[in-house]
Amino acid sequence: MRNIKLTIEYDGTNYSGWQSQKNALSVQAVIESAIKELTGEDCRLTGAGRTDAGVHALGQVANFYTNSAIPAQRFSYALNGLLPRDIVVIASHEVDVDFHSRFSAVGKRYRYLVYNFPMPSALLRNRAYHVPFALDLKAMQEAAGYLIGKHDFAAFSASGSSVKTTVRTVTSASLEKSDRLITLDITGDGFLYNMVRIIMGTLVEVGLGKMEPGAVEEILESRDRGRAGATAPPHGLYLAEVYFRKEDMPAVLKK
Amino acid sequence: MRNIKLTIEYDGTNYSGWQSQKNALSVQAVIESAIKELTGEDCRLTGAGRTDAGVHALGQVANFYTNSAIPAQRFSYALNGLLPRDIVVIASHEVDVDFHSRFSAVGKRYRYLVYNFPMPSALLRNRAYHVPFALDLKAMQEAAGYLIGKHDFAAFSASGSSVKTTVRTVTSASLEKSDRLITLDITGDGFLYNMVRIIMGTLVEVGLGKMEPGAVEEILESRDRGRAGATAPPHGLYLAEVYFRKEDMPAVLKK
Repeated sequence: MRNIKLTIEYDGTNYSGWQSQKNALSVQAVIESAIKELTGEDCRLTGAGRTDAGVHALGQVANFYTNSAIPAQRFSYALNGLLPRDIVVIASHEVDVDFHSRFSAVGKRYRYLVYNFPMPSALLRNRAYHVPFALDLKAMQEAAGYLIGKHDFAAFSASGSSVKTTVRTVTSASLEKSDRLITLDITGDGFLYNMVRIIMGTLVEVGLGKMEPGAVEEILESRDRGRAGATAPPHGLYLAEVYFRKEDMPAVLKK
Repeated sequence: MRNIKLTIEYDGTNYSGWQSQKNALSVQAVIESAIKELTGEDCRLTGAGRTDAGVHALGQVANFYTNSAIPAQRFSYALNGLLPRDIVVIASHEVDVDFHSRFSAVGKRYRYLVYNFPMPSALLRNRAYHVPFALDLKAMQEAAGYLIGKHDFAAFSASGSSVKTTVRTVTSASLEKSDRLITLDITGDGFLYNMVRIIMGTLVEVGLGKMEPGAVEEILESRDRGRAGATAPPHGLYLAEVYFRKEDMPAVLKK
């Protein structure tokens, strides 16, 4: 039995999310079908992050077990020949039998794109969150700084999610503007359900002047979801990278 | 009778091109329908550039005549409320009655995107031309330099197009690489049918080492379409900007 790790890019627009659900087309199910077509086996594909409907991936990681003799690196080419064009296996490698895409991950990087222009964008309509009003980037950057470190992110988590702890460590959170596009890159050891989207929704309120940058610190302390901003829409969010060794994470833990 | 100028962004993926055709959905026809819905009038929309099927626009310009009393700048908002999300009117202004989107234009800028990475991109599948092999950017930049100036571009024009002259002036042609994306920005007083796509196809051959950069000069002199490269696919091409006054063109004419 071999364990194959896939790195996957996808456009989440036409899917119900990563995870298989009844009566809805998921990215996972589409790739599992392609693996079945290729190997004849019913594989279970385990993803590192369960992205929601409309959320994209630049570097989702997933693994599956197979008895197929196909060389590990051929899987990417062979699967791409079977997959729709909005799902691409960028790389495939054989990994240790104990490797688990979710439990072996030590960190992730998410990206969130805001299209900041009075008119919406036809070309980025499913790729970035349209904010038509002027945003104060400096204030947003200052606010993002409060997120870095080990904190209880309960206030930035969708209510109803059942996790053991809401404490997470954010190792970097950078915001940059290029032309009309604001890019948030946020790295951490783990993210709660909807955490990046609630963070972005909150940063947009800061950018609009509805909230002071320092409010982020108070919101963290409050652990109250009601004090954070709205949940920004899914189509601006990208699972950018999954890290499996601490050394590969781009920023050293600050605290 | 008022003359209204629209600046339009569109995703050309789902259209047969700018110009109305029988049995095919064109961008022009969709906007004309929206104008009809808004004003009750059967307007004829004149575009600056007739983009082909799959070609996008960041700044197409079009104008139409109307008796409607709607303030010129409200047209953009009102039309966006009626248009599908892959067509956006970025701006609307009232212009002189003599203004004609095509005949009044003194220049255009086109953009062409190449996605240069071994694997295709799910997110850019309809936005950039995928070239999986390594490209020599310096050689491509050198080759592009030969295009600048007043030349007979017959070799870079689809055969069968009937124009009075194939002489055009290219005022700038810059190629830049950022991560996996190579961007060609090319500005000129006018472009022949398929000219930018044949230029890009030729530059890619130079980048692959199949052609020397200096070959571009010889191809121009030959006036022979057969000597230039293949026509690069439509989905990498964007009509970026249309200029109506020489002063607005970004680069001064070199020759």
